[in-house]
Amino acid sequence: MAMSLVLEKKGCLALRSIDAVPELTATDVRIAVRTVGICGSDVHYYTHGKIGPFVVEQPMVLGHEASGVVIAVGRDVTHLKVGDRVCMEPGIPDPTSRASKLGIYNVDPSVRFWATPPIHGCLTPEVVHPAAFTYVLPESVSFAEGAMVEPFAIGMQAASRARIQPGDIALVTGAGPIGMMTALAALAGGCAKVFVSDLAQPKLDIIGAYPGIETINIRNTSAATAIADATGGWGADVVFECSGAAPAILGLPQLARPGGAVVLVGMPVDPVPVDIVGLQAKELRIETVFRYANMYDRAIALIAAGKVDLKPLISATLPFADSIAAFDRAVEARDTDVKIQIEMPES
Amino acid sequence: MAMSLVLEKKGCLALRSIDAVPELTATDVRIAVRTVGICGSDVHYYTHGKIGPFVVEQPMVLGHEASGVVIAVGRDVTHLKVGDRVCMEPGIPDPTSRASKLGIYNVDPSVRFWATPPIHGCLTPEVVHPAAFTYVLPESVSFAEGAMVEPFAIGMQAASRARIQPGDIALVTGAGPIGMMTALAALAGGCAKVFVSDLAQPKLDIIGAYPGIETINIRNTSAATAIADATGGWGADVVFECSGAAPAILGLPQLARPGGAVVLVGMPVDPVPVDIVGLQAKELRIETVFRYANMYDRAIALIAAGKVDLKPLISATLPFADSIAAFDRAVEARDTDVKIQIEMPES
Amino acid sequence: MAMSLVLEKKGCLALRSIDAVPELTATDVRIAVRTVGICGSDVHYYTHGKIGPFVVEQPMVLGHEASGVVIAVGRDVTHLKVGDRVCMEPGIPDPTSRASKLGIYNVDPSVRFWATPPIHGCLTPEVVHPAAFTYVLPESVSFAEGAMVEPFAIGMQAASRARIQPGDIALVTGAGPIGMMTALAALAGGCAKVFVSDLAQPKLDIIGAYPGIETINIRNTSAATAIADATGGWGADVVFECSGAAPAILGLPQLARPGGAVVLVGMPVDPVPVDIVGLQAKELRIETVFRYANMYDRAIALIAAGKVDLKPLISATLPFADSIAAFDRAVEARDTDVKIQIEMPES
Amino acid sequence: MAMSLVLEKKGCLALRSIDAVPELTATDVRIAVRTVGICGSDVHYYTHGKIGPFVVEQPMVLGHEASGVVIAVGRDVTHLKVGDRVCMEPGIPDPTSRASKLGIYNVDPSVRFWATPPIHGCLTPEVVHPAAFTYVLPESVSFAEGAMVEPFAIGMQAASRARIQPGDIALVTGAGPIGMMTALAALAGGCAKVFVSDLAQPKLDIIGAYPGIETINIRNTSAATAIADATGGWGADVVFECSGAAPAILGLPQLARPGGAVVLVGMPVDPVPVDIVGLQAKELRIETVFRYANMYDRAIALIAAGKVDLKPLISATLPFADSIAAFDRAVEARDTDVKIQIEMPES
Repeated sequence: MAMSLVLEKKGCLALRSIDAVPELTATDVRIAVRTVGICGSDVHYYTHGKIGPFVVEQPMVLGHEASGVVIAVGRDVTHLKVGDRVCMEPGIPDPTSRASKLGIYNVDPSVRFWATPPIHGCLTPEVVHPAAFTYVLPESVSFAEGAMVEPFAIGMQAASRARIQPGDIALVTGAGPIGMMTALAALAGGCAKVFVSDLAQPKLDIIGAYPGIETINIRNTSAATAIADATGGWGADVVFECSGAAPAILGLPQLARPGGAVVLVGMPVDPVPVDIVGLQAKELRIETVFRYANMYDRAIALIAAGKVDLKPLISATLPFADSIAAFDRAVEARDTDVKIQIEMPES
Repeated sequence: MAMSLVLEKKGCLALRSIDAVPELTATDVRIAVRTVGICGSDVHYYTHGKIGPFVVEQPMVLGHEASGVVIAVGRDVTHLKVGDRVCMEPGIPDPTSRASKLGIYNVDPSVRFWATPPIHGCLTPEVVHPAAFTYVLPESVSFAEGAMVEPFAIGMQAASRARIQPGDIALVTGAGPIGMMTALAALAGGCAKVFVSDLAQPKLDIIGAYPGIETINIRNTSAATAIADATGGWGADVVFECSGAAPAILGLPQLARPGGAVVLVGMPVDPVPVDIVGLQAKELRIETVFRYANMYDRAIALIAAGKVDLKPLISATLPFADSIAAFDRAVEARDTDVKIQIEMPES
Repeated sequence: MAMSLVLEKKGCLALRSIDAVPELTATDVRIAVRTVGICGSDVHYYTHGKIGPFVVEQPMVLGHEASGVVIAVGRDVTHLKVGDRVCMEPGIPDPTSRASKLGIYNVDPSVRFWATPPIHGCLTPEVVHPAAFTYVLPESVSFAEGAMVEPFAIGMQAASRARIQPGDIALVTGAGPIGMMTALAALAGGCAKVFVSDLAQPKLDIIGAYPGIETINIRNTSAATAIADATGGWGADVVFECSGAAPAILGLPQLARPGGAVVLVGMPVDPVPVDIVGLQAKELRIETVFRYANMYDRAIALIAAGKVDLKPLISATLPFADSIAAFDRAVEARDTDVKIQIEMPES
Repeated sequence: MAMSLVLEKKGCLALRSIDAVPELTATDVRIAVRTVGICGSDVHYYTHGKIGPFVVEQPMVLGHEASGVVIAVGRDVTHLKVGDRVCMEPGIPDPTSRASKLGIYNVDPSVRFWATPPIHGCLTPEVVHPAAFTYVLPESVSFAEGAMVEPFAIGMQAASRARIQPGDIALVTGAGPIGMMTALAALAGGCAKVFVSDLAQPKLDIIGAYPGIETINIRNTSAATAIADATGGWGADVVFECSGAAPAILGLPQLARPGGAVVLVGMPVDPVPVDIVGLQAKELRIETVFRYANMYDRAIALIAAGKVDLKPLISATLPFADSIAAFDRAVEARDTDVKIQIEMPES
């Protein structure tokens, strides 16, 4: 019988069967899930039972970073067929909402997002998903890479909102998984060079192994000093704030060049002090990022073209049967792991 | 003998002669000053002796909002002639600096700005100014209006950086002089309607008298409630934060629509708490404003065309001989006055 | 029995009954049509039987500029109720198409557009329409104005794509109905002044009556000369090409300022010569316009706020019973009429 | 005695001495020229004696793609010192012109540009140049690469004006030197993949050797077909028109996706027919390119970072003594050479 990874409540995971997946409508596809990445938000629901206003009040299947194979298509679906290898965008908006009509469906208040209470996620054998949010993987892109598209899409959204100009110098503050994704998206997305700053040398070693990325261990040198040295005192064209750390946020005006941009990707839990006059004195533009919209196509294109290689960021791959152990590892190994993936059994 | 209004030191103004104005270079014009507006920064130097890092350490002529008449032109000047009625952009950048080459000369670190220590301002009979930063006033624009171009240019910069789309709904938080200028620039600049919120009813009455502007007295209704009511819960397309007040800044995410913009115009003295996750959840774009660049032409065009009428914002006009009294009034009458102007004697 | 205005074939109109309107789905509303404007495209189908690849091969109801009253709402409709006065966006895209997801649903190849073969238009007593493309008219906006929203939305799209900066100087070449709409949208959308050029003085007189608009009769003065005079030789910030005339298109580089924008609104039937090197020498940006997307809200907001008054452009209003006569007038009176509207009988 | 390469008149080159270079002002540097690339415009002045309105009416030194070594610095120069290896931006604007103040100094009508009549070029031992338009070459960038910055900057300008979004698919029509530069700039500037189309297989072989670039020989397959195949019928996000060929320009609407962009880089001598309705039906944005502004820094950054390798495009390097032969080769070998460079003797 088909098993799913269910978060019963805070701190309690179970591999067990759930209710059948919904019917296939005319515009849906049914997908056999193959690979699912564990996201920090999955781990956070496991350890804390909630994220901000989203509280786990009933058992919920975890997982939202997924690839798979199409096993059935709805009547009106034309761009997908059975057997297609795909990855899935986990947020489903109302396509005729005001936000969706504007092309910013990620901020549609009615979005239903996998593994955000009370919506079930995809650590389950089969899902039914709108064809419009299901994307074919080219042959050269593995299921493992396909399951990396979701977190990479966040980096892509950050890079897109930055409006990078060819040859920009960027700084990413914070070398967590999303900081790394953002650095790679910014580099592929037009930057000449991307600096990444963090306190954790193991993380910096992983991302610093990519050509074009230089690392700053802020135990040794402040990011402001390193960027000033690298740019003759001018500053970074774009600063991607991916740490969510209050000191990094307060120091943003020292990092960017006059007229530059700051992209706020990291999510500090509470309001944090911002040096508004400092931002004004350089007339900085500040962009924020919420998930992604219209990024899957282009994320896949960059991976397929070989401009972005996400495989080095997959720290471990475990079988679905070990998925509770995978989550426990994800809880503990934050400083050395980037991404842990779970492989679903082939049916 | 020619007298200037000199801030000798904090709290001490004098009408007295200063050293002669500099020589006219090939690209300068000499201007007989006619009308000068008093800005909050002039008043602040008077009352506090400094603004942030800028400290009055030697006597300094005040004033940077000016209009006048060209009385001599440098050898290479082609677009101005003696007798032209003009207004002057008070910040003079290095025109070949990196920022200037990018068109953002306002954030050139080497800008010299009138009445910002140690640079003398324009409450003086004659100034020598680069022709490139001197703008002809059409016949229909008075000297009084010409001296309003400087503060209006800040509102124009805010409206420009907002990237208003025709028919936007905007909110201006804070009905100080700059908030009013921003509201008028936003309205002329394409908004269908501009809401202005403040605590001070007299200020709201002044700006609310303009067609197209609606006021919100936040003693009675929160700005968030008023905007939600006016937009069916969607939010303002653009929020211009002109109060510099911490509660207004913290509440920004409640005011803007998903995907909307916030323009930070007000300058809080210290870092203030910002709800970054709130901004992210609507994926807001935040712009900052520092003075202005390339705004004088278009500010004058709007005034000349009658699309913006700044005359109702001139609260009082005093002769130069009474300029110390004018400053003392400016210190005291903040809740009822918008702009006090000083008229220089015709030579 | 309910009558519709049917184009039986080229040159042949009939008032007769057609098949019943479709069923109301959960996301639709049923609307009693009240006012319908006659568009040049309606007239063109009448006189020529086709527009480009769109050929009238079976009887088709004309009309796509409409307002009305909601008389039934689908099960899932929340923002509309019976009795609401509304206007309708006549193009219905596939909301999950690639273009729609990007927010540019107007260029979705699968759009179904009223009175574009083989889709019936709205000169019929009742239509069923998606609620998402149906917009409430504020009380202050009449049905007649509501039926003007559609052509005005084209002007709004042009003004939006221009990316007007507050205080821009614009030129509209061609004073047909769309040229007029574009001029008004550009003026409300932030321009300080809008020049309109044409050969037909009666049209120029109509649009020139609006404050802020100046006219150029190119029988007397070339547009290039007039703009050079008005801008000190610099050129217009934005040129809206609304004539579709080959000489106007060839001369575009002479009209815009260095770094300015050209918006191509007029539709020349065949390819026309363009001075590409001339456009490059000023590094102009050229935008094109295809109908509109996300413009109805903001068009209505501008009308409701009184920033745009379209009523003077309604040349005549005829009852539905006289609608064939209305079309015949529209065929003949091109130089003096702007917009003819038809009023449907109240049921 | 110092020799220069002088175009005496159409078809007549001479190596001879010219008048001394001008005095060094406070903001200039004196540079010993080291490497100069031959541009198609140099060749065109040689073979035709004019380009458009620019006619060679008196002897003129050719060359505008140059690198060298600083040998003297003006009094006010701070960012350069004697011995610096540099490259030079050959167009010198009036830094306070209206265009320059806007940051678009490339379209300042008063620009003086090397080897554009009557301004002397840089195939001469020493030049005096404004420090603000002189850029340091990092150690890793050779003089040969430094002299490639100028043509690459045109590609960079095209890529910048395209507003590439990370992961875009681009098409470059025309594999001349500028087409190749544009392809490399677009690829480094964020495209996932760049297609290049041409008739000349040798050119396609050169550019097709770069990873990420795919070629289309339009003798075998139309560009429209190839792009449709590669994008599932959607079209290219950006089309860079670098051929200047009338059929390519007429066919542009078939190449781009709905809502995509076209960048006009190639310069057809005369007006050419454009399918305006075709461009409108996809609501394409068309950008034009005129030289470059603010591109040298970022071009050098990309070369120094190793993201762009221009060395394979240097077809031959000849000593200055053979520079007339170099020009004669440039006239004849258009189908196989990309760039011929001339090395000046070290003094």
